[in-house]
Amino acid sequence: MRNIRLTLQYDGSAYHGWQVQNDAETVQGKLETAIKDITGETLRVTGCGRTDAGVHARKYIANFHTHSSISASRLPYALNSHLPNDIVCIEAEEAENEFHSKNCAVGKKYLYQINCAPMPDAFLRNYEWHCRYPLNVDEMRRASKAFIGTHDFIGFSSSGRTVKTTVRTIYELNIIQNGLKILIEVVGNGFLYNMVRIITGTLVFVGSGKISADDMEQIIASGDRTRAGITAPPQGLFLTEVYY
Amino acid sequence: MRNIRLTLQYDGSAYHGWQVQNDAETVQGKLETAIKDITGETLRVTGCGRTDAGVHARKYIANFHTHSSISASRLPYALNSHLPNDIVCIEAEEAENEFHSKNCAVGKKYLYQINCAPMPDAFLRNYEWHCRYPLNVDEMRRASKAFIGTHDFIGFSSSGRTVKTTVRTIYELNIIQNGLKILIEVVGNGFLYNMVRIITGTLVFVGSGKISADDMEQIIASGDRTRAGITAPPQGLFLTEVYY
Repeated sequence: MRNIRLTLQYDGSAYHGWQVQNDAETVQGKLETAIKDITGETLRVTGCGRTDAGVHARKYIANFHTHSSISASRLPYALNSHLPNDIVCIEAEEAENEFHSKNCAVGKKYLYQINCAPMPDAFLRNYEWHCRYPLNVDEMRRASKAFIGTHDFIGFSSSGRTVKTTVRTIYELNIIQNGLKILIEVVGNGFLYNMVRIITGTLVFVGSGKISADDMEQIIASGDRTRAGITAPPQGLFLTEVYY
Repeated sequence: MRNIRLTLQYDGSAYHGWQVQNDAETVQGKLETAIKDITGETLRVTGCGRTDAGVHARKYIANFHTHSSISASRLPYALNSHLPNDIVCIEAEEAENEFHSKNCAVGKKYLYQINCAPMPDAFLRNYEWHCRYPLNVDEMRRASKAFIGTHDFIGFSSSGRTVKTTVRTIYELNIIQNGLKILIEVVGNGFLYNMVRIITGTLVFVGSGKISADDMEQIIASGDRTRAGITAPPQGLFLTEVYY
């Protein structure tokens, strides 16, 4: 059997996240239907991780095992003609039999987009968090340093999913200011449920003076969800890279 | 009575264009409903021109006469809280009583976005024309020169609307290449129904070798719609400036 690795891009606005659910449209569900249309096979696609409803991916990695003989170079075109146009297959390639898009991933990069302009942007309503007020980016940068390294991030996760450990390592956390737009880029070995959105919400609280950058180390160490900021809304979040 | 001038931005994807129609969602209809919610007045808003279904505006000018005393500086916030989030009021100001957003306009600028990459972009599916193949931009630029100046553009319009004259003046037509993206920017004193989309479709035919740049003057002079290219799809088109 062949193992095919796919690189996908999707606008999550219309979906209840990546993972197949009963009675809800998901990216995985749409992809499995498209593959069935092409190969006739009812199969399960493995994804590099879950994304929440409304969250996007610029580079999502998935893989599946197939008996089909369709060439990897033709597959993206075939898939795109069967997928809705908010999900695009950018690339397909033959992978080693052992390749598993979730278990083999050693890290991920996410980008969160914030707009501090007084007026929202009609074209970016599904792709950024409209915060309305200027944020103190220097303080946000100072606070961001506390996240770097290996920590128990239980205070920066939402309950509802069982995980073996809540310890994760963050390698990079960059805050990029471009006029009234603020981008938060974070690279880590893995992320808990809602972790990037809670980090973002907490940094926005720092930027608006609701949380002091001086307290960030303590807040992380406390493991207390109530001391962190709000969960930033899903539409500003993009998965941008998966590392193997 | 006060005359209020509004600057709007809208994503036209979900609308049957600007102008109010029976049984169809339009931008003008949404705006008039929002104004009624705020002022209690049932009134007609004047727009700077029609846009087709699926066409967008980065800067659309409208005006309306009102008895309301709401301050112009507060009005955008009030409107935005009553408008769907794909229509945004950027600015409101008091205008001279004689100001008429359509009759006083002396020119408009439109932008058309084309993507020549082999794969579509999931995030820009509603904001560009995915042409799939590289285009000869030098030939498109050569052909574009024939449009500059005052011409009878009857061959570059769709029938179905009565106009006094089909003569229009184009002041500028710039073709900007940015990697595999091509932007067509056109400034004129006015545009016939579908005129920018037909000019774009014709320039794309030149770029793909279906029409010779050498024939462009003749094609314009012929007034024959069948000699021009196809009507480019609506989603790549943005009204970006209105001149008074």
